[in-house]
This record gives sequence, structure tokens and C-alpha cells, in this order.
Amino acid sequence: MKNLTYTFETSLPFYDFDAMGILWHGNYIKYMEQAREAFLSHYALTYKQMFDYGYAEPVTNLQISYKASLIYGDTLVMEITYKPSLTAKLAFEYKFYRKKDMMLMCEASTEQYFTHNGELSLNRPDFYKKWQEKIGVL
Amino acid sequence: MKNLTYTFETSLPFYDFDAMGILWHGNYIKYMEQAREAFLSHYALTYKQMFDYGYAEPVTNLQISYKASLIYGDTLVMEITYKPSLTAKLAFEYKFYRKKDMMLMCEASTEQYFTHNGELSLNRPDFYKKWQEKIGVL
Amino acid sequence: MKNLTYTFETSLPFYDFDAMGILWHGNYIKYMEQAREAFLSHYALTYKQMFDYGYAEPVTNLQISYKASLIYGDTLVMEITYKPSLTAKLAFEYKFYRKKDMMLMCEASTEQYFTHNGELSLNRPDFYKKWQEKIGVL
Amino acid sequence: MKNLTYTFETSLPFYDFDAMGILWHGNYIKYMEQAREAFLSHYALTYKQMFDYGYAEPVTNLQISYKASLIYGDTLVMEITYKPSLTAKLAFEYKFYRKKDMMLMCEASTEQYFTHNGELSLNRPDFYKKWQEKIGVL
Repeated sequence: MKNLTYTFETSLPFYDFDAMGILWHGNYIKYMEQAREAFLSHYALTYKQMFDYGYAEPVTNLQISYKASLIYGDTLVMEITYKPSLTAKLAFEYKFYRKKDMMLMCEASTEQYFTHNGELSLNRPDFYKKWQEKIGVL
Repeated sequence: MKNLTYTFETSLPFYDFDAMGILWHGNYIKYMEQAREAFLSHYALTYKQMFDYGYAEPVTNLQISYKASLIYGDTLVMEITYKPSLTAKLAFEYKFYRKKDMMLMCEASTEQYFTHNGELSLNRPDFYKKWQEKIGVL
Repeated sequence: MKNLTYTFETSLPFYDFDAMGILWHGNYIKYMEQAREAFLSHYALTYKQMFDYGYAEPVTNLQISYKASLIYGDTLVMEITYKPSLTAKLAFEYKFYRKKDMMLMCEASTEQYFTHNGELSLNRPDFYKKWQEKIGVL
Repeated sequence: MKNLTYTFETSLPFYDFDAMGILWHGNYIKYMEQAREAFLSHYALTYKQMFDYGYAEPVTNLQISYKASLIYGDTLVMEITYKPSLTAKLAFEYKFYRKKDMMLMCEASTEQYFTHNGELSLNRPDFYKKWQEKIGVL
């Protein structure tokens, strides 16, 4: 199976910085969701589509490791990697870099399970299998 | 008609302060919603109840005037005043004080209209009229 | 004096929507700050620069009027207009449109005063006068 | 060494719920910071105090495991446990329960390292040692 990585950059709004003058650590959880949305949109699978099929993908596990702190004016480079599997879950890894020197600021990972009309899905939904084939990760 | 005021205090979480070391001005919009929830809960009318009747009350107008800045460690005193009327809207005024000297930090006001199943309500809903009578503001 | 308008668009992250399935009204206060940052960056005057001169520009007044609600999947078009004046303040107006039909969703305005090392500035700072001349609004 | 647990409850504001009608998973990172503030305040050691000694305690690792979803109207019970050690770090574990049936909704943990004037502290600061003795965890 082949990992798939998508990279993009973003400026950081003033209101995301804390009273220490650094990016508040909790904001990475927003950037991780943005990164998933950007990845899935880039590979033509949106949450809205999945929702229209009756599926939701709640985050079940999340892990963040902080290396250094960003300050206001820094640009953030987000790298999100999809870790494909044959189970009914979505797994992503994230690396966040400071653009000016590509220093690694933060690493993270998430797991999401599929639910269908509120019930946990034991197998991969059909639309998801097709999507995995289309993007060529299996 | 009689205004009704409810006052409570809250500490301010670290993540609500910005890189200038002061409370980020945008957070008052959260405190205003918290104040409405606290007021309505105190007077036995919750958003959940209104929602169960098929009603929603979107904010249509909002105005904030900032006087001074809070710093981390300050305690906030919120004073919310309900301005009753015979029209199908909810109007509130807000005063935010710094507890240690009761200095006025911020004044604000909001207007909300009633919608029923997505349609604007031209008249006060029955449950709302009864509530106004019960709390004795008319 | 000549108003100056800057327009850009943005997708809306999942976490900005509320339990009614619509964009939570309080998030516009974030978009307004983003719009100011984008405008000032486009016209080569950043908060960081102003900060380096010892100036801050706290928001003193803010007004929002809501017209309609955005849903997840909508793209937002932000239009920010700088209203130049000869006084020591920054005034902006904002219009927020739904991209697919350019329907106006929200209108807003803000005022900010200049402070220097914590003291209110009665006159326009020199760097600000020069910037107003350079962008040709006076 | 003796773990120390502090428990408190809080209502959940409307704006913390997402378009699926459930508590947005990212908000737990705010509650975890609130829990640390409440714990440290209860045991007479505040971030402000530590800051006044020249110390900061950035979060370096964070882990969250989600079990079930809260809905609007639920009350949250937060249980935070301090895991004392002889190293220069702060370690906490968190359990979040739904009040009505005390069902476990979410488990989490964090690690923070001490920095002094921006430099990593290799040993426990003196004020921290004294605090550990005072609360009797060693």
C-alpha cells in the first residue's frame, strides 16, 4: 500500500496567537481538520459527499507532539499523509513546518472510524473502496 | 414594560488572550452567547426548548463598544439585560465589568428574530408570550 | 478622499459551523480580522510593522448585520473597504457574499484607534500618513 | 508518589457544537487547558505565578482518545489527575464524563516541560519542588 501526501501553506491569523506571543498549541487541532478537508477535496472525496451517503467519520484518536513555537508573521507549511488500510478507518499523519527554514514545528496523527446512520461500520463502505482504487493507494 | 437583568461572573481561560497579552476582542461574542444561555436558563427558557417547538432565534444585529482591555488573571462580571417587546424578536444589552474595580470594559447589544421551521415569524410564538407573562416583564 | 476595496474568497472549515448546521454567527468576527490582515498585507502595511513602531490599533467599535446563513460547502467572498480619514483611526466596512450566487450574507463595520506605548494617539502617526499618501486615498 | 485528582463540572456553550449536532472534538483541547488552570488554581499554583518566576510550561505532548459524543444540553464532568515526578515536567491525565449517567466520553493526557527565559529547564525549579512538597505528592 502506498502513502499519499498533500502539502500546502497558510498564513496564521493574529487571533491564533496566545498571551506568550506564540501560536496557541490548541490551534493545531483546527489545522489538522483543515488539512484533512484540503486533502480529501484535492483527491475528490469531501465530508459533504460522505455525509450524503449517510456516513460520518468521527475522530477516535489523536496525538500531537510539539517541537517548537511559531510566532506571528510566520507562514505554516502543512504536510498531510494518508495511510491507507483495508479496515474501515481513515488514518492520517501530519507534519507542520515553519516556511522560512522548513523547521519541523509539530507532528501529529489521527484515526477516524466510519459510522453509518450512527452505527459503527465494520467494513469499508463501497464508495470508499472505489475512491481508494481511483487514487491508486492499494 | 420592565427590563430584566441577570449578572454572573467568570474567570477567563488562557487561550482567550492574544499576542498583545490582552483579551482578544472577538471573544466577547462568545461571552454574549454564554450570557444569553445563562439568562434564559435562569428564567427557565432554553434554546433546546425553543428548538423542540420548531423555533430558532438567529442573531440579526450585533453591536459592540470596547472601553478597556482585560488581562490574564482578571475576573469578568457579565450583566445581561433583556429588553422585552411585543414584536417577534429577542433584544439584549450587555455590560462587561472587570471584577476587581467594577470598571466597565465593554458594552454590547444584540437582536434575534424568531424563525419557525426556517420561516421568519411575524408574531410572537405562543410559548414565548406565556414565558413573558410568567417572568412578569409585560 | 477615496475608499479602497479589496476582495478575496475563502472556503469555510467544518468547525466553524454550529449545531443548526449553519455558520456560527460569531465567526464573522474572525473573518473581519482576517480581512483586515489581508487588506493591510496587500497594501504593504502589516500589524507587525505597526507593532514594531510601538503602535497598536485596538478595535473600539464593531457592528454586524446578518442577512442570511451559510452552510457547509459554501464558499465565502469577503469584500473589505478602507474608509480613509484625517483622524487617528482606522475604519473598515465589510461585505460577505455567498460565492455561488453572490448573495449578501452579512455586512459589518469596525473602528480602531491608534495607541502608542499604551497611550491613545490623538494624531495620525507619521508612518500611517506616509502610507495613506502612498496608496493614494487622500 | 501520590496522584492528585480534581473534579469539576461545566455546561457546554452552544458554539462548541458542530454541524453534526455533537460537541466538536477539537474543543477538548480547550477543556484540558481549563482543567489544568482549575487544578493549579485549586492547589495554589497559577500560570501567572510561574510566569512571574520567569517560567513557562509549553505543552510538548498531547494524546486524546474519544469514546462517545456529547450533545447540546449535556453537562460535562471533568476529572484531571496530576502525575507527579522528579523530572522537570508537568504530566496530567484527563477523564471527561457525561454527567447524567457518568459515561466516559473522552480520555486524554498531556506533558509540559519547564522553560526558563526561553531555555529548557533540566531540573525542577525550586518553587515547583516546594509546591510538590506542600501538596504532599512526593
